[in-house]
Amino acid sequence: MISHDEHGRASFGRLEAPLQLLILINLVAFSVETLPGLDAGTQQMLGLVELVSVAVFTVEYLVRVALSRPRSSYAWSFIGVIDLISILPFYLGLMFDLRSVRVIRLMRVFRLFKLARYSAAVRRYHLAFQYAREELILFGAAAVIVLYLAAVGIYYFEFEAQPKVYSSVFHSLWWAIVTLTTVGYGDVYPITTGGRIFTGFVLVAGLGIVAVPTGLLAAALSKAREHEKELEKEEARQGAAAKHGEQQ
Amino acid sequence: MISHDEHGRASFGRLEAPLQLLILINLVAFSVETLPGLDAGTQQMLGLVELVSVAVFTVEYLVRVALSRPRSSYAWSFIGVIDLISILPFYLGLMFDLRSVRVIRLMRVFRLFKLARYSAAVRRYHLAFQYAREELILFGAAAVIVLYLAAVGIYYFEFEAQPKVYSSVFHSLWWAIVTLTTVGYGDVYPITTGGRIFTGFVLVAGLGIVAVPTGLLAAALSKAREHEKELEKEEARQGAAAKHGEQQ
Amino acid sequence: MISHDEHGRASFGRLEAPLQLLILINLVAFSVETLPGLDAGTQQMLGLVELVSVAVFTVEYLVRVALSRPRSSYAWSFIGVIDLISILPFYLGLMFDLRSVRVIRLMRVFRLFKLARYSAAVRRYHLAFQYAREELILFGAAAVIVLYLAAVGIYYFEFEAQPKVYSSVFHSLWWAIVTLTTVGYGDVYPITTGGRIFTGFVLVAGLGIVAVPTGLLAAALSKAREHEKELEKEEARQGAAAKHGEQQ
Amino acid sequence: MISHDEHGRASFGRLEAPLQLLILINLVAFSVETLPGLDAGTQQMLGLVELVSVAVFTVEYLVRVALSRPRSSYAWSFIGVIDLISILPFYLGLMFDLRSVRVIRLMRVFRLFKLARYSAAVRRYHLAFQYAREELILFGAAAVIVLYLAAVGIYYFEFEAQPKVYSSVFHSLWWAIVTLTTVGYGDVYPITTGGRIFTGFVLVAGLGIVAVPTGLLAAALSKAREHEKELEKEEARQGAAAKHGEQQ
Repeated sequence: MISHDEHGRASFGRLEAPLQLLILINLVAFSVETLPGLDAGTQQMLGLVELVSVAVFTVEYLVRVALSRPRSSYAWSFIGVIDLISILPFYLGLMFDLRSVRVIRLMRVFRLFKLARYSAAVRRYHLAFQYAREELILFGAAAVIVLYLAAVGIYYFEFEAQPKVYSSVFHSLWWAIVTLTTVGYGDVYPITTGGRIFTGFVLVAGLGIVAVPTGLLAAALSKAREHEKELEKEEARQGAAAKHGEQQ
Repeated sequence: MISHDEHGRASFGRLEAPLQLLILINLVAFSVETLPGLDAGTQQMLGLVELVSVAVFTVEYLVRVALSRPRSSYAWSFIGVIDLISILPFYLGLMFDLRSVRVIRLMRVFRLFKLARYSAAVRRYHLAFQYAREELILFGAAAVIVLYLAAVGIYYFEFEAQPKVYSSVFHSLWWAIVTLTTVGYGDVYPITTGGRIFTGFVLVAGLGIVAVPTGLLAAALSKAREHEKELEKEEARQGAAAKHGEQQ
Repeated sequence: MISHDEHGRASFGRLEAPLQLLILINLVAFSVETLPGLDAGTQQMLGLVELVSVAVFTVEYLVRVALSRPRSSYAWSFIGVIDLISILPFYLGLMFDLRSVRVIRLMRVFRLFKLARYSAAVRRYHLAFQYAREELILFGAAAVIVLYLAAVGIYYFEFEAQPKVYSSVFHSLWWAIVTLTTVGYGDVYPITTGGRIFTGFVLVAGLGIVAVPTGLLAAALSKAREHEKELEKEEARQGAAAKHGEQQ
Repeated sequence: MISHDEHGRASFGRLEAPLQLLILINLVAFSVETLPGLDAGTQQMLGLVELVSVAVFTVEYLVRVALSRPRSSYAWSFIGVIDLISILPFYLGLMFDLRSVRVIRLMRVFRLFKLARYSAAVRRYHLAFQYAREELILFGAAAVIVLYLAAVGIYYFEFEAQPKVYSSVFHSLWWAIVTLTTVGYGDVYPITTGGRIFTGFVLVAGLGIVAVPTGLLAAALSKAREHEKELEKEEARQGAAAKHGEQQ
C-alpha cells in the first residue's frame, strides 16, 4: 500500500483518494464555520471534523516523514512544509489561547495546498511560468507602470473635486486597478470633465497593456501542454525502443 | 414527408421549419406571460398559444415515438426526453392544481432545447468540450481554487470592517466571483486598505487563471471546426472514390 | 480633378480631403449643439456650419449624380443613399416644422457614414464578416440562447425577492446582458443565495460562450488582412509579369 | 566606470543600479507626499529625499551631457529631455513661488520615464507599435466611430428620461466608453426600455470592434518578440562567423 515516488517520498497508494476527500470535507467545514449564527450541534460536529482531520493528517505526516528516503527529502520539501502548517495551528491552539488570533484559524485553509500533491494543473502552471517568466516580468512591470501613471493622472484631475475619494496617489491607485481590470465596482469614478476624458484615454491605451500578461500566461500554458505531450511521446518511444532492445 | 435519420429516428422533412417557428413563438409567449399587468385579452391569447403548442408538440411526440425504429431509439434519447418534458407540465397541470408551483410553469422553457435537434452549434460545442474536456477540468479546478483562496483572503481582511457584507467565506465567494470575472456590480467591494491591496494582487495574479478556461473553449471550438471540415473533405473524397469505383 | 472609380462613380481627387474635414467639423458641431446652456452666439455659429455643410454636401451630391456613369450606379448605391440622407433632413425641415421631431435632427449623424467611402477598415470588416458569417450566426445564436436561459433562471430565483427589478423575463434579460458581457453596472444584481449561486454557474459556463463571437471576429479580421496582402502580392506579380511581357 | 553606448551616450556602468533604486525611492516619496495628514517629521524626511534626488539627478544630467559624443546626442534625445524635466521643476520652484501650481509638483512623476533607459519592454512595445501602427490606426478609428455612434444612439433614447445624466452627446460618450470597455461603474446606465435594448445591441455588436485593437497589440508584441529572437540569433551567427574568420 505504501510505495516511493521518484523523489524517495512515500506514496499511500489506494489511501490517497480518501485523504483527498478528507481535505475537501475539511475545507467545507472550515467555510461553514465562518457562517454567522450556527447552532451548538453544528459547531460540535465541525469541531469533531477538525479533530478527526488533524488526527489523520498528523498520522499521515509522521508516516510520510518516517518512510521517506532520505528522510529530509519530504520534511523540507514544499509539500512537507505545507503538511506541517496544516496541523501546527491546532497544536499551537492547545498550548496557547489563540481563539482571538483569527489569522491562525485561517491558516487551516493551507490544507488546500495539500491537494497540490495530486495536481497536474500545478505542474503545468509551473512550467508555463518558467517559459514566460522573463516576459511576464517585463510586461507585468509595464502594466504596473501604466497603473501608476493612471493613478497619478486621475489624482491630478479629481483630487479637488473628490478629495475624500482620490485623497492620495495610493487611493487613486485603487481606482486605477479597479478600472483597468474593467471590474468597475462603482465606488470610485471620475466626475470632472478632465478626469473623464483622461479615463477614456487611459482605457483605450492602457487596456491593451494591462491585458497582455493574461494573454501571455494563456499562450505559455498551451505551449507547456505541447511540451508535455512531446515528452510523453519521447518516453513512449524510448520505452518501445528499450523493449525492442530487450527482445533482441 | 417523414423519413428516418441515421439513428432510426423519424424526421418530418418540410414540417420541421414550422415546428421550429412554433417553438420560437412559444418562447416569446412564455416570456410575455411573465410581464406584469397584462390585460385579459392578451392572457387569453397566450393561453391559446400554449394550448395549440401543447397539442402540436403532443402529436409530434406520438408520431416520433410511433415511427422511430427501434421504438426506444427516440423515447430514451436526450431529445426524446426533452420533447416529453416540454408537454408533461401541461398535462400534470390538468390533473393537479399546480398554479402555485412556479418551477412547473418555468419548465416550459425546456422547449428551447427542442431546437437542439436542428443545431449545428450544439454538435460543435459538444465536439469542442470533448477535445478540451481534460484541460477544462484541470484549469476549471485551478479557477475554482483561486476563487476560493480569494474568498478566504478577503474574508480575513474585510470581515471586521464589513461584517454584514463579508459575513462568511460563502458570502466572500460571491465577491470573488463578481470580481474575478470583472463583472463588478458594486454591491460588494473592499473598503479596508489591506482588502484593497489584496484585491489588487488577486486581480493581477488571478485574472489570468480564471480567464484560461474561456480561452481553452474558444481554441477547442476552432479545432472542432477544422476537424469537421476535414471530415467533410474525407467524406467527399470517399464519395468520389466510390463513384469512381462504380464507373469502373 | 474629377475621375471615375472602378464602379463608374465620380471621385473628387484633391477635393476629397476637405470634404472629409467638413464631415468631421459637422459631427463636432452636431455634438456641441446637444450641450445644454449654449449662448446665442455659439448657436448662430453652429447654424452657420450646418448651412454651409448642407450647401457643400448638396453640391457634392448633385455633381456625383451628374458625373456617375451609368447614373444609377451612384444614386442607388449604399453611399449614394447615405449622401442623400445626410442632406434630406435639412430640406424637410424647411418645408415642415420638425423642431419637435428629435429623430430628424439626429439623422445628421448619418453624415458619419459618408466617411465610409474612404475607409479601408470598412472593407476589411466587410471581408471579415463574409469569412466568418456562418460561424458568427451559429455562435451568435448560441450566445442568445445562453442569455435567454440565464434570464429565465434568474427570473425564477430573484422574482420573489426583487419583484420590481426582475419583474419579467425581459427585465431579467437586461440583467443577463449586463452580467455576461461583464459590464456589471450594479443597477440589477441577485440578492438571494439561490440567485447568486446560479449567477456563479452562469458566469463560469456562459462567459466562454458569449465571448466566442468576439474572438471569431478578431480571428476573421486577421485572416482578411492576410487575404488582402496576398491579393496585393498577386496584383504586384501580375503587374510585373505584364511589364515583363511588354518589354519582350 | 563610465562607457559609451552605440548612440555615443554615456553609461554609468555599475552606478546604474543605484540610480534606478533612487528613482523608485523617489516615486514612493512622491506618492507618500500626497497622503493627507502627514506629520512634520515625515514631511521633512520626504523633503530630504527630494533634495538628495535632485542633487544626484543634476550631477547625473551634467555628467551625461559632458560625456556624450557628440554632445547633442544626449541633450536632445528623448531620454535627455526627460532627465531635464525631472530636475527642472525643483529649480523653477526655487525661483518662483510654485506651491500653488499642482501640475508642477506632479511633473516629478516624469522621473518614472528615466527608467525607460533600462527597459527592454519599452523597446518591444515600440517595435510592436511600429509593426501594427497601420492596423492600430485603422481599427482604433473604427472603435472611435462605434463609441461615437453608441453615444448618439443612447442620447436619443435616454435624454428625455435622464436629462441630467445624458445631457449631451459628450456626456453620452462617457457612458459609451465605460460600457464598451465593460468597466460599467454604474454611475450612468440606461433606464428606458428603448435604451436598454439599444445597449444590448451595442454590446453584442460593438464589443468585438472595440476589443480588436487590444488583441492587435498583443499579437504584435509576440511578433516583435520573435523578431528580436531572430535578430539575436543572426547576431550570434555573425559573431561566430567573424570569430571563425579571425581564426583562419
